[in-house]
Amino acid sequence: MFEKITIIGMGLIGSSIARNVHQHNLAKTLVVADKNQKVCEKLVELKIGDIVTDELALSVENSDLIIIAVPVGAMEEVAELISPNLKKGAIVTDTGSVKVSVIDQIHKFCNETIELVPAHPIAGTEFSGPEAGFIELFDKKWCILTPLPETEVRAVEKVSEFWESMGAVINIMDPEHHDLVLGITSHLPHLIAYTIVGTADELSDDIKSEVVQFSASGFKDFTRIAASDPVMWRDIFLNNKEAVLEVLQRFNEDLTALQKAIRKGDGEYLYQCFDKTRAIRKAIIDQEIGQ
Amino acid sequence: MFEKITIIGMGLIGSSIARNVHQHNLAKTLVVADKNQKVCEKLVELKIGDIVTDELALSVENSDLIIIAVPVGAMEEVAELISPNLKKGAIVTDTGSVKVSVIDQIHKFCNETIELVPAHPIAGTEFSGPEAGFIELFDKKWCILTPLPETEVRAVEKVSEFWESMGAVINIMDPEHHDLVLGITSHLPHLIAYTIVGTADELSDDIKSEVVQFSASGFKDFTRIAASDPVMWRDIFLNNKEAVLEVLQRFNEDLTALQKAIRKGDGEYLYQCFDKTRAIRKAIIDQEIGQ
Repeated sequence: MFEKITIIGMGLIGSSIARNVHQHNLAKTLVVADKNQKVCEKLVELKIGDIVTDELALSVENSDLIIIAVPVGAMEEVAELISPNLKKGAIVTDTGSVKVSVIDQIHKFCNETIELVPAHPIAGTEFSGPEAGFIELFDKKWCILTPLPETEVRAVEKVSEFWESMGAVINIMDPEHHDLVLGITSHLPHLIAYTIVGTADELSDDIKSEVVQFSASGFKDFTRIAASDPVMWRDIFLNNKEAVLEVLQRFNEDLTALQKAIRKGDGEYLYQCFDKTRAIRKAIIDQEIGQ
Repeated sequence: MFEKITIIGMGLIGSSIARNVHQHNLAKTLVVADKNQKVCEKLVELKIGDIVTDELALSVENSDLIIIAVPVGAMEEVAELISPNLKKGAIVTDTGSVKVSVIDQIHKFCNETIELVPAHPIAGTEFSGPEAGFIELFDKKWCILTPLPETEVRAVEKVSEFWESMGAVINIMDPEHHDLVLGITSHLPHLIAYTIVGTADELSDDIKSEVVQFSASGFKDFTRIAASDPVMWRDIFLNNKEAVLEVLQRFNEDLTALQKAIRKGDGEYLYQCFDKTRAIRKAIIDQEIGQ
């Protein structure tokens, strides 16, 4: 599909892409780059990548497709580093969970011959690092592309085909709209989950051990997403501030209303709130893609 | 184990207990009672119970063990109804998710010959009704007992053996302590989950359909518990008001601190919060009971 692909940032997502490139022969040469020397050693041990390097700037030389899979707060640094060595006509893509900010960070370092096709695969686990990656991670999962108005259609098609060959299903959106939708479906839930697990963490040790013991009664569902990579999530909140604060505001209003209903003993209000949420659950479990 | 058992309230929990009574021969006669005529018809169809009845008052006659498995807000009504017909020396137990309030509701209707052994199996699914029950529901799950100071040890032992024969593991607690621990591990998470799904439900239809579509990015984890039985949960919040409002207060403070950190761009604070939550997750997945 490509002569040469470079993946920069070899965590869960980067290493899962790399495993797919090998498995499905998506490139003649695959370069995998990570500034962390220990990650590079791990990649050699795992036999991932035809070339493994910690020199990000050089890693993109002659590559047709460059995938930046670093935390959202590190995109600018990487884009600046690689820009002098990008091949004319190369396609640059990323895997960031925020799109407006990532485009801001990368686009200014792309000359007019470079095609930027921002991407966000909606896939992940609670585990991080190159050893956490696996081939099936993107299978039947959404991958959202947020191309710029000037992005060539052919480049969008090539990136789409690339993701489809890993089993992903493509959805195309405006970057602003992406950040709002993901603010609701992903960023707010993570913030809430981190908060509630943090609240429990501050309890006295004896109660905390009981919270762990009886976590199956609801709490446990929150701990999975609150175990996600802390650097990745710090960067997401710093880079999607407005959308997150906006949806958090709505959440706070709704929570205050429920709190008031509990205090006043308003059973009718509580029942109405708890009854209407079932429809969304049903719609979700009836879906085929993105489970 | 018992000559005659009566189960009142044949939803997910009640019908799962009944299936176990049949499977493990825990009683010579099993009476299953539900005031809802349609539920009774379903029970006959499912062949659950030696006797199926919608006359709650009569259902307890000559029973050695009575299990009240109705929503927490309906305990008093049931206790009053059955009390004149309780056999001398009978053991009364329940399956309510709140213990102080349930003891208040039931205890006053038990004469001095009746042994009250309040119980709370930490088990459930997002589905309700007699057809949702299954044999393995309590296997390797906790069942918390909160006996009163005057409860006879022998009665507590018999109820423990009953639950253990269904695969449950027993934990004994003060009722007040139970309500605080479950307030944190179960009631607060459900309240938060209902809130966030409710917030999403109020979005415009087009955004709502995208929330469903991309729910795997975090939101979906919340929808499972927000699909629980609305009557059951209304009653829990009305009957564990103080503990829930207390833990909600702490949660709100922690959320406000995170909100401030996002607004100010305080990455260091966010990182610290998101890093410390991993330890609890690890402790939870390392457990053997209650997964």
